[in-house]
Amino acid sequence: MSWLPSLLTDTPESGYELAIKLSRMAVKKTQPDDDTRSKLRADYANNADSLTMVSNVVATNFQTVAQANNYWRD
Amino acid sequence: MSWLPSLLTDTPESGYELAIKLSRMAVKKTQPDDDTRSKLRADYANNADSLTMVSNVVATNFQTVAQANNYWRD
Amino acid sequence: MSWLPSLLTDTPESGYELAIKLSRMAVKKTQPDDDTRSKLRADYANNADSLTMVSNVVATNFQTVAQANNYWRD
Amino acid sequence: MSWLPSLLTDTPESGYELAIKLSRMAVKKTQPDDDTRSKLRADYANNADSLTMVSNVVATNFQTVAQANNYWRD
Amino acid sequence: MSWLPSLLTDTPESGYELAIKLSRMAVKKTQPDDDTRSKLRADYANNADSLTMVSNVVATNFQTVAQANNYWRD
Amino acid sequence: MSWLPSLLTDTPESGYELAIKLSRMAVKKTQPDDDTRSKLRADYANNADSLTMVSNVVATNFQTVAQANNYWRD
Repeated sequence: MSWLPSLLTDTPESGYELAIKLSRMAVKKTQPDDDTRSKLRADYANNADSLTMVSNVVATNFQTVAQANNYWRD
Repeated sequence: MSWLPSLLTDTPESGYELAIKLSRMAVKKTQPDDDTRSKLRADYANNADSLTMVSNVVATNFQTVAQANNYWRD
Repeated sequence: MSWLPSLLTDTPESGYELAIKLSRMAVKKTQPDDDTRSKLRADYANNADSLTMVSNVVATNFQTVAQANNYWRD
Repeated sequence: MSWLPSLLTDTPESGYELAIKLSRMAVKKTQPDDDTRSKLRADYANNADSLTMVSNVVATNFQTVAQANNYWRD
Repeated sequence: MSWLPSLLTDTPESGYELAIKLSRMAVKKTQPDDDTRSKLRADYANNADSLTMVSNVVATNFQTVAQANNYWRD
Repeated sequence: MSWLPSLLTDTPESGYELAIKLSRMAVKKTQPDDDTRSKLRADYANNADSLTMVSNVVATNFQTVAQANNYWRD
């Protein structure tokens, strides 16, 4: 099973969750070691600018997901 | 009730508020602890570059919300 | 009266001014204290990278405003 | 005369020049003092990351200008 | 054979892989030396903000690839 | 002869090369001195985050070029 079978989601909220997943996947593919990523989590989860940077990536991915779903207008 | 039932808003101003909400939600989902986020707030709310970074995320999310609403042209 | 009644403007120049307004509003809503923002202004207005970061936010917001106005093509 | 009468240009190259103008105008409107901007120029013009940041802003503005001109396809 | 024969992919997942490839290619073309890039890898793969920055680039490229593929809607 | 006669390219790969050219041109126009740029090259070509920043600019410009070419779908 693919981790990304589709960009289509039923609701805006699940689309937002997909945007978070997309944002994390690039990190995981760049740093595949689970332990290392766990340690790094303490860094960015406790730093204001790091969290803003994360939010920026989610925003870009959410733009893509929202476009794919025609903004869930229907 | 979903925190994000729709991307559609009645006015540009409420669309801007939604963009702020979207920007904060990614932070909340990355750092769910309320106390930690409150402490971090003092950091970014008093630093010029941090505030500009926040504004950048809002701008990206507002682009998405504005597109969803056809720019409130009607 | 809303601070953002519409994304439509008569001219590209006034659209650019609106983009600046949108960029500043996110800062204001994150740091509502006028005095604090005034003090921070000295920081970013005298730092090259800070000014470039501000320009980046304006560019993203101008993209939104320009799209809303069909690039003032008519 | 407006500094931005239109987003339309005759050629891609002049569109790129307009993107640079748009990028600089946000800086000028944030820091209107000519002497200060001249001094700051030595900072960013001699720093690799600063120059990349400037290029990022130009890229976003060029995207807007290129869209406005239908990518000069005709 | 071109390293980029097409932006079209069969699935969203392979589109995401292409976005990663696009992101790395700009680095490779700026720093063509394999040994240097390998050494730098230890830097960004163990730094939270560096990984977020990488994810940001992937997000922008994924937006392009997803648009090219009409979001794999069919 | 213009350095940017058109945004249209025959292939995705040549479109990517054009995106790199667009990214470098903003740097060249901000820092026209060839020697200075050559010295700065050692800085960003050996720093992981600097290279990621460069890749980010290329990604934005590639988005523009890809749109101009209708993603080379035909």
